[in-house]
Amino acid sequence: MEDVLAYLERHHERDLADLQSFVRIPSVSTDSRHREDVRRAAQWVATRLIDAGVTDAAVNDTDGHPVVTASWTFAEGAPTVLVYGHYDVQPPDPVDRWDSPPFEPTERDGKLFARGVSDDKAPMLIPIRVAEAFLKTRGHLPVNVKFLFEGEEEVGSPHLGDFVRANAERLAADFVLSADGGMWRADIPTLTVSARGLCALEFTVRGPGKDLHSGRHGGALHNPLHAIAQMVASLHDEEGRVAVAHFYDGALAISEAIRADTAALPFHDEAYLADVGASDTFGESGYSTLERQWYRPTLELNGLWGGYIGEGSKTVLPSEAHAKITCRLVPGQDPARIRALIEAHLRAHTPRGVTLSFNKDDHGAAAYRIPDDHVGLTVAREALEIVYDRPPLVVGMGGSIPICDTFRSVLGIDTVFFSFAVGDENIHAPNEFFRLPRFFEGARAWTAYFEGLAKTSPSATSGTVARA
Amino acid sequence: MEDVLAYLERHHERDLADLQSFVRIPSVSTDSRHREDVRRAAQWVATRLIDAGVTDAAVNDTDGHPVVTASWTFAEGAPTVLVYGHYDVQPPDPVDRWDSPPFEPTERDGKLFARGVSDDKAPMLIPIRVAEAFLKTRGHLPVNVKFLFEGEEEVGSPHLGDFVRANAERLAADFVLSADGGMWRADIPTLTVSARGLCALEFTVRGPGKDLHSGRHGGALHNPLHAIAQMVASLHDEEGRVAVAHFYDGALAISEAIRADTAALPFHDEAYLADVGASDTFGESGYSTLERQWYRPTLELNGLWGGYIGEGSKTVLPSEAHAKITCRLVPGQDPARIRALIEAHLRAHTPRGVTLSFNKDDHGAAAYRIPDDHVGLTVAREALEIVYDRPPLVVGMGGSIPICDTFRSVLGIDTVFFSFAVGDENIHAPNEFFRLPRFFEGARAWTAYFEGLAKTSPSATSGTVARA
Repeated sequence: MEDVLAYLERHHERDLADLQSFVRIPSVSTDSRHREDVRRAAQWVATRLIDAGVTDAAVNDTDGHPVVTASWTFAEGAPTVLVYGHYDVQPPDPVDRWDSPPFEPTERDGKLFARGVSDDKAPMLIPIRVAEAFLKTRGHLPVNVKFLFEGEEEVGSPHLGDFVRANAERLAADFVLSADGGMWRADIPTLTVSARGLCALEFTVRGPGKDLHSGRHGGALHNPLHAIAQMVASLHDEEGRVAVAHFYDGALAISEAIRADTAALPFHDEAYLADVGASDTFGESGYSTLERQWYRPTLELNGLWGGYIGEGSKTVLPSEAHAKITCRLVPGQDPARIRALIEAHLRAHTPRGVTLSFNKDDHGAAAYRIPDDHVGLTVAREALEIVYDRPPLVVGMGGSIPICDTFRSVLGIDTVFFSFAVGDENIHAPNEFFRLPRFFEGARAWTAYFEGLAKTSPSATSGTVARA
Repeated sequence: MEDVLAYLERHHERDLADLQSFVRIPSVSTDSRHREDVRRAAQWVATRLIDAGVTDAAVNDTDGHPVVTASWTFAEGAPTVLVYGHYDVQPPDPVDRWDSPPFEPTERDGKLFARGVSDDKAPMLIPIRVAEAFLKTRGHLPVNVKFLFEGEEEVGSPHLGDFVRANAERLAADFVLSADGGMWRADIPTLTVSARGLCALEFTVRGPGKDLHSGRHGGALHNPLHAIAQMVASLHDEEGRVAVAHFYDGALAISEAIRADTAALPFHDEAYLADVGASDTFGESGYSTLERQWYRPTLELNGLWGGYIGEGSKTVLPSEAHAKITCRLVPGQDPARIRALIEAHLRAHTPRGVTLSFNKDDHGAAAYRIPDDHVGLTVAREALEIVYDRPPLVVGMGGSIPICDTFRSVLGIDTVFFSFAVGDENIHAPNEFFRLPRFFEGARAWTAYFEGLAKTSPSATSGTVARA
């Protein structure tokens, strides 16, 4: 009988070609023009699962983009994991900053460049490869595995909660093993134990009912661009601390243990600044850069626009100005309450002569932290040590995995992050890439994970683990 | 011999068709993709002049867009006017706000809708029509007329100064009669005696060297959108007064006479607000709305942008943010100095962690005011009274005619505004239109102007008029 790892090695080239096909599909979930592409990607994933031998794969419709599910649950008495990932991707903008077209995968220096390759297409393909290797060599998996791949992660998973709620029994598991998340660094294996929450809002400031000539009308009316700049500027103090009243109320303080762990990590501001090309760090005083990234809440503008933004000049006093905001939250901050605080702040700071309105299509998710002694973490630690010959470091995540909140509140289970993307792979930015050696390392680690989990006692994973 | 006005009337439909052909040419001078269209418009104007009987019409190359010139100078002993207009237009953005396509002229309710029809294609066609009517009926014009139509008015006429300087002798005249400018209102004839100056700048705030994920990096670095909002907000105080140090130094105060003239005009804030669709007026306290529009300087944002501005959300911490500014100036304010003051202010307000740079392709023009007793004004007053049966009101202009500054400094002559566009015709905005009855009224008025000017004594127009 062929060994699982040998099978994986023998099919490595085929799997790379598969990955290339997958990333060619522009499954941009934020853009309604790509609705059919998103569906095409879902279909691609379901077909890939069936080819792997997970025969009940299905494309499930939702009120948004589809959810792909599949399961193999014949390992009697063994633990059950719910493998999570997402097949949707961020928009490729600004397209002109890409060195190769975002949806034409291009290999350079052992990296594959394409939109979505790191977030999350390559990482989510790995457990499918590994399931296939077990099923085609041994005929069975060491543990029970359910798959759940969504197409709305990049828009905040607005329909996943309803789907999970409606299918709670079918999705029941001991914990979630997430192929989304990303390793902190390329050179050291890490385990992520927290993610920040998210709260998004978009608003419009309206002045005159139509665009006006700024020469003729300038000076007589409030310019929505001036108003929005003042409103946005009021959201932070000069040191970068959020100036919205009560924003920090109840936010979990950073424990001494986490401060010590974080301080011990191999991280230096100078190297970080060189890497991101910034001249200086900036933000809340009293915290290190990593503390601010992982364990402190933020309020960030993601977009700000109004008036004429093309080449040359156009002397317009515009009718409207717009801003997009996302906050990152920590435990103790409720997304809906934070949003309400910001809305109240902006209302109170709306000057005379303009009006304020909010876009209602927004989303939020609470922050997440897995208990230190969770068995899924212990197995992850051992699996990573098998592949990388050293114990992983424990890190936080600045980004958000809103589904952790969903899985905890609906299914009552925790989420273990086990992704082989690396945080520097330009996700959500031009020239996103994935390190191809990780495609095999990840497969080895998922193999070790399934085997390691099979060796734990069922009681340790039966949902009785402590939860924060 | 056919009468001049009868000739005009008989050719009205042909001239309207001509206007439609003219506005179909998208001569957008700010956009390099329309370079050939701008040239096509210049060629169209030259051909139209030749058809009118002004046989020396020529398309003159410059370092930018071409200048069209022509002349008829056989009225010995009569005054000479230099007729000015421009054949370039503003960009049509936002195109989706137009009720009919911007470059497909569409007639509704006696108005012709098209980009550039009011600013300045219909008004500049009128004197060509009138010259033709004189030449084809009487065989000569009552005065000497030179034509100068430029293609860079909407970008601040950057090459017109050099062109006028190099052709000063050829363009010599007693004064300029401008077909650009616009009447204040549709129901009352007005004479414009001042225009504000202009100074433009565009700047970029740069943070990280590339777009970053706002979850991963937010809180660690300064977000260029936050920085630009703070910088822009610092440019005004809360009451709308410009907060740049020394901005108002030397600005000509509004005289008691002008305050009285302006207060006597039929203008009401409520009607104005209803017309432009704004909830309130806003700006420097101590001045009326018209005073702020015509006789006080401003600093207006025309564009502000950065980050993700498409549909949905994208959690990006952008690398750059941008802003476009134009100021309107009054006599006593030097455009270059004002620009330097704003640059210094922005430099002083650039926070840690971001860098500031300025776009160098900017332009400026001093404010303008014609002496009250200029003969060209007197003739204009009489010509308007002939057509409209009432004396015109005296008004200021909020916008800028940078060429006044050029003509005064290079040719030593003043500019009389004599346009039949109206200020409410959505110039620089979607659904620009021109009132078609003005196309004939304007032709009658230009006919009366040329005839009236011929009756003045040569000495009154020979460049000896008082200048401010």
